[in-house]
Amino acid sequence: MNSDALKKLLEQVADGHASVDDAAATLKHIAFQDIDYATIDHHRSLRKGFPEVIFGEGKTADQITGIMDKMLEQENVVLVTRVDKEKADKIIYRFSNAVYHEDADMIVHVKEEIPITGKGTILVLSAGTSDIRVAKEAFLTAKYMGNTVQSIFDVGVAGIHRLFSHKDPIENASVIIVAAGMEGALPSVVAGMVSRPVIAVPTSVGYGASFGGLTALFAMLNSCSSNVAVVNIDNGFGAGYVASAINRK
Amino acid sequence: MNSDALKKLLEQVADGHASVDDAAATLKHIAFQDIDYATIDHHRSLRKGFPEVIFGEGKTADQITGIMDKMLEQENVVLVTRVDKEKADKIIYRFSNAVYHEDADMIVHVKEEIPITGKGTILVLSAGTSDIRVAKEAFLTAKYMGNTVQSIFDVGVAGIHRLFSHKDPIENASVIIVAAGMEGALPSVVAGMVSRPVIAVPTSVGYGASFGGLTALFAMLNSCSSNVAVVNIDNGFGAGYVASAINRK
Amino acid sequence: MNSDALKKLLEQVADGHASVDDAAATLKHIAFQDIDYATIDHHRSLRKGFPEVIFGEGKTADQITGIMDKMLEQENVVLVTRVDKEKADKIIYRFSNAVYHEDADMIVHVKEEIPITGKGTILVLSAGTSDIRVAKEAFLTAKYMGNTVQSIFDVGVAGIHRLFSHKDPIENASVIIVAAGMEGALPSVVAGMVSRPVIAVPTSVGYGASFGGLTALFAMLNSCSSNVAVVNIDNGFGAGYVASAINRK
Amino acid sequence: MNSDALKKLLEQVADGHASVDDAAATLKHIAFQDIDYATIDHHRSLRKGFPEVIFGEGKTADQITGIMDKMLEQENVVLVTRVDKEKADKIIYRFSNAVYHEDADMIVHVKEEIPITGKGTILVLSAGTSDIRVAKEAFLTAKYMGNTVQSIFDVGVAGIHRLFSHKDPIENASVIIVAAGMEGALPSVVAGMVSRPVIAVPTSVGYGASFGGLTALFAMLNSCSSNVAVVNIDNGFGAGYVASAINRK
Amino acid sequence: MNSDALKKLLEQVADGHASVDDAAATLKHIAFQDIDYATIDHHRSLRKGFPEVIFGEGKTADQITGIMDKMLEQENVVLVTRVDKEKADKIIYRFSNAVYHEDADMIVHVKEEIPITGKGTILVLSAGTSDIRVAKEAFLTAKYMGNTVQSIFDVGVAGIHRLFSHKDPIENASVIIVAAGMEGALPSVVAGMVSRPVIAVPTSVGYGASFGGLTALFAMLNSCSSNVAVVNIDNGFGAGYVASAINRK
Amino acid sequence: MNSDALKKLLEQVADGHASVDDAAATLKHIAFQDIDYATIDHHRSLRKGFPEVIFGEGKTADQITGIMDKMLEQENVVLVTRVDKEKADKIIYRFSNAVYHEDADMIVHVKEEIPITGKGTILVLSAGTSDIRVAKEAFLTAKYMGNTVQSIFDVGVAGIHRLFSHKDPIENASVIIVAAGMEGALPSVVAGMVSRPVIAVPTSVGYGASFGGLTALFAMLNSCSSNVAVVNIDNGFGAGYVASAINRK
Amino acid sequence: MNSDALKKLLEQVADGHASVDDAAATLKHIAFQDIDYATIDHHRSLRKGFPEVIFGEGKTADQITGIMDKMLEQENVVLVTRVDKEKADKIIYRFSNAVYHEDADMIVHVKEEIPITGKGTILVLSAGTSDIRVAKEAFLTAKYMGNTVQSIFDVGVAGIHRLFSHKDPIENASVIIVAAGMEGALPSVVAGMVSRPVIAVPTSVGYGASFGGLTALFAMLNSCSSNVAVVNIDNGFGAGYVASAINRK
Amino acid sequence: MNSDALKKLLEQVADGHASVDDAAATLKHIAFQDIDYATIDHHRSLRKGFPEVIFGEGKTADQITGIMDKMLEQENVVLVTRVDKEKADKIIYRFSNAVYHEDADMIVHVKEEIPITGKGTILVLSAGTSDIRVAKEAFLTAKYMGNTVQSIFDVGVAGIHRLFSHKDPIENASVIIVAAGMEGALPSVVAGMVSRPVIAVPTSVGYGASFGGLTALFAMLNSCSSNVAVVNIDNGFGAGYVASAINRK
Repeated sequence: MNSDALKKLLEQVADGHASVDDAAATLKHIAFQDIDYATIDHHRSLRKGFPEVIFGEGKTADQITGIMDKMLEQENVVLVTRVDKEKADKIIYRFSNAVYHEDADMIVHVKEEIPITGKGTILVLSAGTSDIRVAKEAFLTAKYMGNTVQSIFDVGVAGIHRLFSHKDPIENASVIIVAAGMEGALPSVVAGMVSRPVIAVPTSVGYGASFGGLTALFAMLNSCSSNVAVVNIDNGFGAGYVASAINRK
Repeated sequence: MNSDALKKLLEQVADGHASVDDAAATLKHIAFQDIDYATIDHHRSLRKGFPEVIFGEGKTADQITGIMDKMLEQENVVLVTRVDKEKADKIIYRFSNAVYHEDADMIVHVKEEIPITGKGTILVLSAGTSDIRVAKEAFLTAKYMGNTVQSIFDVGVAGIHRLFSHKDPIENASVIIVAAGMEGALPSVVAGMVSRPVIAVPTSVGYGASFGGLTALFAMLNSCSSNVAVVNIDNGFGAGYVASAINRK
Repeated sequence: MNSDALKKLLEQVADGHASVDDAAATLKHIAFQDIDYATIDHHRSLRKGFPEVIFGEGKTADQITGIMDKMLEQENVVLVTRVDKEKADKIIYRFSNAVYHEDADMIVHVKEEIPITGKGTILVLSAGTSDIRVAKEAFLTAKYMGNTVQSIFDVGVAGIHRLFSHKDPIENASVIIVAAGMEGALPSVVAGMVSRPVIAVPTSVGYGASFGGLTALFAMLNSCSSNVAVVNIDNGFGAGYVASAINRK
Repeated sequence: MNSDALKKLLEQVADGHASVDDAAATLKHIAFQDIDYATIDHHRSLRKGFPEVIFGEGKTADQITGIMDKMLEQENVVLVTRVDKEKADKIIYRFSNAVYHEDADMIVHVKEEIPITGKGTILVLSAGTSDIRVAKEAFLTAKYMGNTVQSIFDVGVAGIHRLFSHKDPIENASVIIVAAGMEGALPSVVAGMVSRPVIAVPTSVGYGASFGGLTALFAMLNSCSSNVAVVNIDNGFGAGYVASAINRK
Repeated sequence: MNSDALKKLLEQVADGHASVDDAAATLKHIAFQDIDYATIDHHRSLRKGFPEVIFGEGKTADQITGIMDKMLEQENVVLVTRVDKEKADKIIYRFSNAVYHEDADMIVHVKEEIPITGKGTILVLSAGTSDIRVAKEAFLTAKYMGNTVQSIFDVGVAGIHRLFSHKDPIENASVIIVAAGMEGALPSVVAGMVSRPVIAVPTSVGYGASFGGLTALFAMLNSCSSNVAVVNIDNGFGAGYVASAINRK
Repeated sequence: MNSDALKKLLEQVADGHASVDDAAATLKHIAFQDIDYATIDHHRSLRKGFPEVIFGEGKTADQITGIMDKMLEQENVVLVTRVDKEKADKIIYRFSNAVYHEDADMIVHVKEEIPITGKGTILVLSAGTSDIRVAKEAFLTAKYMGNTVQSIFDVGVAGIHRLFSHKDPIENASVIIVAAGMEGALPSVVAGMVSRPVIAVPTSVGYGASFGGLTALFAMLNSCSSNVAVVNIDNGFGAGYVASAINRK
Repeated sequence: MNSDALKKLLEQVADGHASVDDAAATLKHIAFQDIDYATIDHHRSLRKGFPEVIFGEGKTADQITGIMDKMLEQENVVLVTRVDKEKADKIIYRFSNAVYHEDADMIVHVKEEIPITGKGTILVLSAGTSDIRVAKEAFLTAKYMGNTVQSIFDVGVAGIHRLFSHKDPIENASVIIVAAGMEGALPSVVAGMVSRPVIAVPTSVGYGASFGGLTALFAMLNSCSSNVAVVNIDNGFGAGYVASAINRK
Repeated sequence: MNSDALKKLLEQVADGHASVDDAAATLKHIAFQDIDYATIDHHRSLRKGFPEVIFGEGKTADQITGIMDKMLEQENVVLVTRVDKEKADKIIYRFSNAVYHEDADMIVHVKEEIPITGKGTILVLSAGTSDIRVAKEAFLTAKYMGNTVQSIFDVGVAGIHRLFSHKDPIENASVIIVAAGMEGALPSVVAGMVSRPVIAVPTSVGYGASFGGLTALFAMLNSCSSNVAVVNIDNGFGAGYVASAINRK
């Protein structure tokens, strides 16, 4: 339940279109709701403008379904991240509006079309083909949080002319998300070209001394461009989320 | 030289108030300028809206003075970070407008008053007394990049009522910078209270398993609140810079 | 064989209800007992008030069954930790009183009801849904060591009002066990609210820079609240054990 | 201000021995008190039964003196940890009741004798001579939190008969603190001998693969004895604090 | 081909019992022998008194069989380490004298009985049941290098009386091998009891902060007992080998 | 398309053998080509003298086939690294000239015979049998980049006479690639024997404190021989590539 | 003594211009020479074309002087690296031809002018001003090994147009050395522009998550450009040496 | 007091040359002796054949003097390791027989000449000049534990002919100690040449990716030669001690 929905409900009470009892029943679970294995934070959409997102890894299909059931009573959008195909299939046949995005390992459930509330365009770049899963997770998160989103993939620094050929969308973006593995150099180069904030998301792509993304993470934290901030390895969701927070009016 | 200054110069050429030769001489070094030990990126203020900042650590007083001389020909504000008192004293007596902020190890040189260009307030929080040096570096950077800035220090999670007593400034800030060492828990708690982006800056405060700030850094990257992005350990300057980029109109 | 059982046996010898030979046979294995692949430390329950616990990981069902057989000759309670369902099924059908707790990967075998010997209540908190396995291991260990135990799950710091709504059980507990993964911030916040000891148990929940629980571990060791002590990653058993040692009369 | 002092004040108000205005003035700063560079948590002694302790490292003598001044208005005991001799000398000449314990790098300031409130004896063991500084910090903390404390130093596992000769105090202690560097083996051996909780504090004593105490820390977290919980490297204060929390009635 | 065999061959040439051509054919491959994927170092048994041992991990059954074929032409004993059951079954049916020791993952092939050439007894201790695989690898290596070997398992420091009950074999051994995982404390305690060299072999037994044996490794390198030297994690073979080198006349 | 092919095309345009339209169509994709999941850098063979190589790990057989299709329109040689047998089988049946080298996990596709353009011989050495996969990847890369290549395997430092018996090819090589795991000592010894550059490639062969090749990597970076440069762990391809760059006329 | 000098001496013996005894005296120390604390490897210049270089760190001025004395009897060039000013002053006043380069912490002693034997130009780039010390060490090493060397400093990726303005020297170099700290991204970008080998040398410039150069080192090892090989952190000497080996005719 | 001295004393009692009272006084402190800051383990020389050695680092000159006083009442030899010159000067003027070895940072105090009790020669090798301090510590320890010791310094693998020129002492040694920093390759090469045990001692010599000796340590633990065992970084004393234990009759 977001801020608009809450106000609407209270106005309905005020003008007699909703009984106090019904409103109370609705509001009872706003703070949070215990369903044995989870304490769902319904209050979050009021406080933060977007509901809790379900981290799918390590949860069973049944647990995810249970949490979705409860959240859908109050929310318009529900996202589930890090769900593999097998688990997703068990979930989406239960919800007619749920869509599984296999290239991002995400389930998206939308009840009503989401209005664009972001003030500019969020641009998602990836250094290589293998970084796309993470970049897509960022893309979908930002999109379903109400933003206009664009993406350009496989423009890493080993052939830097590929990057420069996209100068226009880069310079016009409101926030830029850059996903890169291996040496993680792309965010520094991109951030050196613009004045807007760059959210760098290291990926676990690489081998040997890439340490599952740590090298990219540390490189990004050491960026010689100062308009860079960093999220956890493979955390496309977090990158999309923080970019949306930045882009909100 | 920022975008406004450039346009003004070109207009002067257009209406005959500046000769082409003088304008050419002025513009010659816009791209960058070699002074033996440094290639100053004057173009940066055009491209990024704020000039290059001098990282003072590992540079001599003479080198810093030399770079400042060149930058001040074209820039209104020059910041030098990570300068200890002894080195600062050798520098500031050379520039009448330079001020040394000892609690942030920074030199600030401003020619004309800086207009507020940030659209909201940037709030800087610190978890402990020892985190203040880093928090102050963030504060001054954001301030001299044209923002309204507020700060609250020593409100760590061991006595969490201290934090909650500042609920109003926290909920009203446009961007929040949180500096914390040791277990680095404060950004998660703060970010859970608001919808705006939180820039977490880990500090090297602590001992033993704090690993000079690494534990705080990793904790912040793992924040269970999604509106958190992170900069390098003790990088108050970077936090202030990225917060300013976010806060710009 | 605990201290009470030993005294009883000796009294039986003293008053003629047990022959010296029988007593000798019983006592022969008190120090320890070799069964080829293990040297069972029967003396432990005398020395420490609770028998050796079987660490199930890396042992075959047959080995576990063999050790249980020997221990049950002398002990009232036998716990086996870290047993997956497949292995557990092979074991419990051999012992009519053995129960498998799948949510904690534990087998519990109790011969006679266990009296409550703990002086207060042990409270087990978990930060997230995924930390429950570890929290349940702590819960069952504390319970079968003779304590009154309570639990509250999924009350992490991203929605801190969930935690504060449980202020009463938190302030009334004799010892608090807090299981948390990711940034591991919950123990600091909880410990800041109470004067009693908090046993923090980091979990391997998370990804990227969570390093399989290391980040949570280090964060907990750096807690700015001083009434926190820490056990190994995912060591719910150890947390339950040390909490029981603290809570004993 | 601890719980007893608070009640006394309120009773004085109730029976007219204190005016409401005076009580209000006294109570005004109970929650916390801002002194520019610190937010002193006076409420802590009410909440936790012991006031905030000053971590001296990284604070100037002036800062420490300032914080002590404010705390002494409300507290009976003030401890300052990690103060070297030079800094301590500047501080203690300002407070007639302050004593500097050089072997523990601690300042202790006591207004009135501290009653013993701990229910048993806390025993502090050290593995080597070089671990004594940390052990002494634990000793003094526990003592000034109202406990009977005993200590035995230099009883490491290379000559284990030295340890066994102290079997009686070890078996009779209510809580045992064990400080050890290098391989950190002593807590496991000690904990194997008793049923009471053991607080292990790794020290940075050693070289090469001791990693400034990390090896001892990790060894202690992996203790094969289950009644062991661990605090940060060199954190004698934390060990003394958590042992006191355990030992409180 | 060891030193004795070489002398015998040369004596046969000297007294006419072997033709020069046959001897030349035999000796041709003494230096080393290329078999495409391996350069077998036959010279090693002359130089080092024991033939090259085959490290089975990462080699196919066919590769191992091929190398064994070549080695058995010249050697009396061939050992293969780190072979799982499935692979071993494919190998041993090819060699009538080969025996697979499943508890040590080793294949042993002996042509003629091995004389005892070690000057004393090598004792192999293990801290826990799970360390036995490594301890057995050490045991078999030492045995087939011509030593009298004894073993005692599961005598870790959490119940140290188990260790002291074996004081006699410990004090009488010529070399002691100690295998331990987790906190790796056993070698220090054992080495403190004797004057003979102790070879410590850390095992990967443990979880969380045991880091796959690293904690035990580092603890052993920091042993406060000075008669300890260390081999790689899980390297039972190396421990047996170096102990044999020490024990040789 | 390499530099020779480009000139030829332009000459054909010049002398009328190719129409401008056809040439334009051919050249259109020279800069790079978007195929949804990849931005193929065709310009690379002009710029660097060798086309982009396909890193097979983490790509599906379909993706690899798609990229090969596009590259083969313009290139004579296409290499795919890190392809297991199952995936390779799905790919090579689609291309009549593609060959799978299982011992190197590589697919090689050559349209016309490759002329030798390297100025000397590249020698590939491996320390052990298990390092061969990596050494073969280096061998094939160097070969298909137009070099004369030689290899010698299993000549590690434990039997250093094996190495010295190959003194001639070692001293005559133009560049030497040395693949080694475990302690990674071979490059230092080899580089001490010659004046030519040595490219050291650490392999992940080993266990325990070999850390998946990190120990070999660090050892090589610390080589006391100064003519050693290093590539990433298991990066046989990179070693072959950089050796080819060095060996080019 | 290099190869030419040796031949000259032998020819003098052959044609009677040198006595056998004198030649023998000269040649006696060719293999190596013991001077108590060092075994000087005079043979190295024959074997490797350049004499041993003295690593100055950790040696006293007297030790360095002693080794220089012995080397100068046989060598034309002697380099000493990592010598601070104070130590250098004590050394150079002893040798009239020794020059101290303070910006590289190196002493260079040349008897006769060094002929250019390198076949192309070696280009040394640095990412920042603080990387210059390392870059200069590479520069001087390459120069005194007989190469034409060029350098361009402070052209890091945050203002990438600075780099592109130097396209010509970059594309014309025979070997390129790139020194960079912080995120270490420059070698990847440079190597993507050329076909020649790039020697990347990470520097310890940076703070926090730069780990004294480790982040730059790992980034370079993960370069997405394949013509990059890496040397140890701050090892300008090694970079210059291996570049010289590559550039030799 | 070693075993011979004890027997002598008891025989004196038996034949009346010593009174029971005097013997009792002498024996009183055999188990251990408390001197406030240390528990001296006098029993050690009986149990281990060599007295406790004083680790000088972190102890004051006064503490060392105090411990020496007590030990010299019962022991013939006292060694103090890791003492810098300044501290040593304060100590040795107090003991007429104490000698300071500055190149090993050791004090040696001998009352009567030490008989050779080792059965063969211990050989100490060092890879470089900078490893000598550690090698000398090993040398002196082995010498004063009653062994014939030889040393050869600066014979690292970059010029391996230097090593091979010492083939005879290497092959004839009973135990070989090898000290090496940087890549730590020397022990593998030496151990490949002999059948006797090699004790490898890594040194902290190196920079960058040598990690203060960790790279050498890990390389040695991964030695492809199996007769290698390892001690802690810079632990020359431990190497000498364990070599003596091996060499004892």
